[in-house]
Amino acid sequence: VLQATRPTAVNLGWALARLRGVWRAACSRGAAPRDIASLLREAADRLHREDTAMCRRIGEAGLALVPRGATILTHCNTGVLATGGIGTALGVVYTAHAMGRAVRVIATETRPLRQGARLTAWELSRAGVPVNVIADSAAASLMAQGEVDLVVTGADRIAANGDTANKIGTYMLAVLADAHRIPFYVAAPMSTFDPSLPDGAGIPIERRDPAELDAAPGVEARNPAFDMTPARLIGAIITDRGVLRAPYAEAIDAVMGEHADGPRA
Amino acid sequence: VLQATRPTAVNLGWALARLRGVWRAACSRGAAPRDIASLLREAADRLHREDTAMCRRIGEAGLALVPRGATILTHCNTGVLATGGIGTALGVVYTAHAMGRAVRVIATETRPLRQGARLTAWELSRAGVPVNVIADSAAASLMAQGEVDLVVTGADRIAANGDTANKIGTYMLAVLADAHRIPFYVAAPMSTFDPSLPDGAGIPIERRDPAELDAAPGVEARNPAFDMTPARLIGAIITDRGVLRAPYAEAIDAVMGEHADGPRA
Repeated sequence: VLQATRPTAVNLGWALARLRGVWRAACSRGAAPRDIASLLREAADRLHREDTAMCRRIGEAGLALVPRGATILTHCNTGVLATGGIGTALGVVYTAHAMGRAVRVIATETRPLRQGARLTAWELSRAGVPVNVIADSAAASLMAQGEVDLVVTGADRIAANGDTANKIGTYMLAVLADAHRIPFYVAAPMSTFDPSLPDGAGIPIERRDPAELDAAPGVEARNPAFDMTPARLIGAIITDRGVLRAPYAEAIDAVMGEHADGPRA
Repeated sequence: VLQATRPTAVNLGWALARLRGVWRAACSRGAAPRDIASLLREAADRLHREDTAMCRRIGEAGLALVPRGATILTHCNTGVLATGGIGTALGVVYTAHAMGRAVRVIATETRPLRQGARLTAWELSRAGVPVNVIADSAAASLMAQGEVDLVVTGADRIAANGDTANKIGTYMLAVLADAHRIPFYVAAPMSTFDPSLPDGAGIPIERRDPAELDAAPGVEARNPAFDMTPARLIGAIITDRGVLRAPYAEAIDAVMGEHADGPRA
């Protein structure tokens, strides 16, 4: 049931598989239900601690890509409200802020669920990071006016060649950044990589309730919740194992191969 | 007061100037207030009839650009709810529909005021034109999937070189259409042209109430209501005097010169 809630993202399935492994091992040892629950709780706490450390490492890795005084455009929410730590794309922002880089953020509203306007704006402003919200459709003109220095987004699933599925609108930002010669980066932990998929064509794109778009009565909305950004539009992938650059197939293979026991294990 | 409500659009100012001309001429003849009111009413009715005819001519001119079975992406509202007739960009859609071209429409939601989801979707569906609403940020991925055959938008003001100011997000669509090699057209009456401006840099961009974006408490939104699309991204401008193609400075000059008494006079 939990896994079916997020067909596009792969981290949740990865975390559930880890907990299922703990549960099966305990069952096969004939552990008592109370002990199994306790083992699962320990495994979940360990996941949480790892997630916190992973966010910190993503933030540190991304620092090299953030010039002093940069205005960073980001999409959706990828911060303390979305992860166990300081976040992925927002982890980069928080780390740059903490290091005195004097960054500013432009948060896209992120229709239809408005995670940028509601969540990203809230947590950045609470942390003292200067932030403005814009309509998703205003990103292009701000780029044309030279008001965006770089774009950093999160990822829901990254294929073996670097193709990245993320919140609807991410591909839009990648195309626009490319047209305006603005760096476009993805920030994500290794658990977001899905080496079983050669490219993004195989990533299922969840379609959500058309009612989220509140169209005029009798009119059907189309509401894909994610889109796919091809690797060629991604300037770098900022991971908890460092900054990956194209060609991504080799770069991803190299960092995943270093850890033969699987992602972040 | 009326004119100050729309700093970016130029049609309203043009229509008000025409009515002011009627008023001044009547005043200088010493006409009675009741007669002045009646003359203004007549002039306004004439404007309305002209607007209806102008929409029809835009629709007819645009027909040549709409292949049978085309899926047309449009932005904001430019139809019967926005003009005195069948509309500008939607005038093209309605005409193609009436001529049996079997067109379909994708209407962008158009944040923040949602004219696409509320108005365009309503009037197209009422007229029997198949229409789907999408989030503004979903246009890019639909283009990548080959689901958009052409983009047609309206215009609030067109400079002498063809640079066009229109609802925020129009420039986004023009850049995305260019990146996906999809034709991008603007539909507008001659009264939308402002030959006094050599290019789009001089068009004032209205900034509306940040509250329209409903950001988290304490966070400032930036809410430009329009953006500027450079002429080089516009495949054609569909007008009531025919379809204009680049180089626009010459094309605009030629059609405006044909009518030495001014736009649509």
